[in-house]
Order: sequence, then C-alpha cells, then structure tokens
Amino acid sequence: MLSKARIKYIKSLQVKKYRQLEQRFVVEGAKTVLELLDSDYTTECVLGTPDFFNDFNAVFKGFAGERIEVKPDVLATLGEYRTNDGALAIARCKPNAAPVLTASDFTLVLDDIRDPGNLGTIIRIADWYGIKAVIASDETAELYNPKVLHSSKGSFTRIPVYYTALPDFLSKTRLPVYGTFLSGDDVHTVNFGSGGLLVIGNEAHGISKEVEQFVTQQISIPRYGKAESLNAGVATAVICDNIRRSR
Amino acid sequence: MLSKARIKYIKSLQVKKYRQLEQRFVVEGAKTVLELLDSDYTTECVLGTPDFFNDFNAVFKGFAGERIEVKPDVLATLGEYRTNDGALAIARCKPNAAPVLTASDFTLVLDDIRDPGNLGTIIRIADWYGIKAVIASDETAELYNPKVLHSSKGSFTRIPVYYTALPDFLSKTRLPVYGTFLSGDDVHTVNFGSGGLLVIGNEAHGISKEVEQFVTQQISIPRYGKAESLNAGVATAVICDNIRRSR
Repeated sequence: MLSKARIKYIKSLQVKKYRQLEQRFVVEGAKTVLELLDSDYTTECVLGTPDFFNDFNAVFKGFAGERIEVKPDVLATLGEYRTNDGALAIARCKPNAAPVLTASDFTLVLDDIRDPGNLGTIIRIADWYGIKAVIASDETAELYNPKVLHSSKGSFTRIPVYYTALPDFLSKTRLPVYGTFLSGDDVHTVNFGSGGLLVIGNEAHGISKEVEQFVTQQISIPRYGKAESLNAGVATAVICDNIRRSR
Repeated sequence: MLSKARIKYIKSLQVKKYRQLEQRFVVEGAKTVLELLDSDYTTECVLGTPDFFNDFNAVFKGFAGERIEVKPDVLATLGEYRTNDGALAIARCKPNAAPVLTASDFTLVLDDIRDPGNLGTIIRIADWYGIKAVIASDETAELYNPKVLHSSKGSFTRIPVYYTALPDFLSKTRLPVYGTFLSGDDVHTVNFGSGGLLVIGNEAHGISKEVEQFVTQQISIPRYGKAESLNAGVATAVICDNIRRSR
C-alpha cells in the first residue's frame, strides 16, 4: 500500500536539498531499476506495476527491501519522467569515497560540468570506454539529479563519481594529466600511454586556471570545419576513443 | 517600435505549424544572430537592444531588413530562451533543396533523429568535421525548431539539411553507404576511402530495415565497458573523427 506520506517522501527526493538530507535518491524506469538492483547500491524500496513484479519475480529472490505494487497511472505521477513504464526505486546514496587510481587506467576529471544532461552523458561514455571512475569538482552537477540518472541510461550504477576540490586532488597525483586546449597537441597523434587523468572543462569556460596548472599535456581535437567548439560530452567521447586507439 | 501584432507573430513562430505556414523562423541570442547575418539566409528583421545595435553597427551596412530597438527585459520575453542577451531575428526558411553529393566528401544521413537537441548537436558536429550537408528522413526533428537551432550553436547557418524519403534517395546513389550496427566492422580499422554517406539511426531503434538494405558497409564503435549504447550525437562524432583519421 502506497501511503500519502510515502508519495510526499518520493516527491521530496526530486529536490537536491532533501536528497542530501535523507541520503536517498529515486530511480525511474523498469530497465534502470533492474540495473540498480544488479549493482552495489542499496535499494530500500521498489514500487512496480503488477506486470513488472510478475515479469521480474526472480530478480527479487533475496531482496531485503520493500516491494509495493502500484497501478501504472499512479507510477506515472510519482517521478520526474511521466513516461515511466513499470518501476521506481528508492536507494541509498553512496558515501563520497575517493577511488583508488592506478597507472594503467584512465580516469575522467570534470572541472565544473554544470549541465545534468552532460554529466549523465559523460558517465555513459565512461561506461562505454571502460573508464572505472569519475572525479568531479564540487561545482559539477549532482550525481543523483533525476536528469543525470536519466541521461546516464543506467551507467551511474557502474561508474562511481567522487566529488572533491580539484586543485587539492590534482596536486597529490603523479599520473599524467591531459586537458583539452585550442592549441594542444592533436589527439590523432598523441601517445596516451597506459593511463592517466583526462580533464574535461566547463561547458562555457573550459578548464579553469586553478586546474590548468596541473595539466601535464595539453591536447586538442582537430577541427576541419567552422564550428567553434564541440559539446563537453561529445569531446569526451572523441578523446576516449583516441585514447583507446593509441593503447 | 514593436507592435503587439509583431510580438504575436514572433511568438507564433515558436510553433512548427506557423513556421511552415509563414516559411519564417526565429533566431535568438546576439552571437547566433550575427552568424545568421553572415550566412546565406535572408534575415528580414532584427530586434536588438540599444547596446547590440551600437556594438555591431558595422554589421548592418547594406542590411536590407528591418531593425527594431527593444529593451533587454522585453527581448527576454519574446523567445523560447529567457536568457537572451541582446538580439533576436526573423529569417526566411530555405527551400528544401537536394545537395550535390561528390565522391570526395562525406555526408550525414539521419534516419529519424527525433530529439531536437540531438539534431542540433549533430549539425554542430558536421560543422566541426567539415561535412557540408545533412540528409534527413521526413520524420527527423525539424531544423527550425528553437531547440535544434540552440543546440547547433550557430552551425545551422552553415550546414544545409535536406529532408527526403531516405529509401528513395539512397536507391539512387552510387556512393558507399556506412551505417552503425552492433556486429559491424571496427571503425578503428575500417578504411573509409575518400567519401560516402554515413547513416545515423534513430535514438531508440537504430537504422530502420528500409534503410539498412542500402548500407554497403556495416561499422561499429568498439566498446570497452558495459554501457549498452552511445547516444546518437556522441556516436556521430566518434565516427566522423575516425573517418578523418583514416583519410
């Protein structure tokens, strides 16, 4: 049974302040809820249509959380996305833990990616290119924003995002730090070696001065036409693809 | 002087039906209006703040259209985007004319890109990678949608988009036709030759059966992690980058 208090609680989690206060967030859509259940997040409650629980009964063997059956039209009113097709879950936020970086992996470093859609897209790209973690400045969009989760297409369940003050973090690493600048070396010819950090700059202002000083190799994506820039997600993918080609 | 009728007219052009009826569209933002004026579009009317007309007076030498000074707060209420910083223009839609394809260029073919943001991003990517034209299925988002123009960041002024029934169009070309499929050849090793058509599939369903039959080489972007897919714009950029690397 879905109480009014629970509905209010779920809706409150659409707001960052309450997500941070409660340390809980909401996942929408049958497919993403299944990926959440298959991840190391703790899922406390799943709301699903009778069809959803029927079709995925096996998934819930050993599930310690709560299950609530709701009608499809009720489900559609609960989340940020009205097109929800079967399930919604409440999960616990993870502690903000620094990932262990190794010299044989590439890690993305986000210098103020403000747009939630861009952050989600970048997490999805990281997941495609086998990048294991993302480091984000404190001003980067919040991971548990529904728009971030939505555009990450479930990849947020696999790619941890660690928020920290970048200058302090970067001052302590000995790994090579790559960053895109207009006058940087052509990514088609750079030898990226076995691992390092790839800094992605803010959508409007690029990489900040405070972060630039830690960049050990400036790189650039060659341009053949007249567009002034590529968007942050697109640039991330092109560089990750070139890193993979050079390894 | 900005009449009520003009305000109503500008607002009507936010709706596709009226854009098609009037064959006019609205461009927002000082930077994009300047790119529009520098393009082969016919600009009929520019609304700008006193600062805008003062700063860019030289741009209007020989300008045959109308100029209307408006206050910044008025400008902010006229368009789709409230952050408008200086100017708004009304321009004529171009006739839907087939581009001339040559064997030494690559052309993008969009098989039902429905999301306006994706279409704009793809136009911007085409403009970055020196692609001269885009062919789009009739079901692809409309070029003059404010969201398309916004996400193209002015690149729509340089890259023509031709809408047509793709099977009919593709049946008449002798150029190689590349399309992404999960089991396609690795784009890191494909030799793309000097030119051809690159088909980008729908966001949810990929390339349709009717279009697939015309694909002469199936290609794929190698995956190193677990994400199920890349978004349409991101995939387009990665393939365009690989085409440029192989030439």
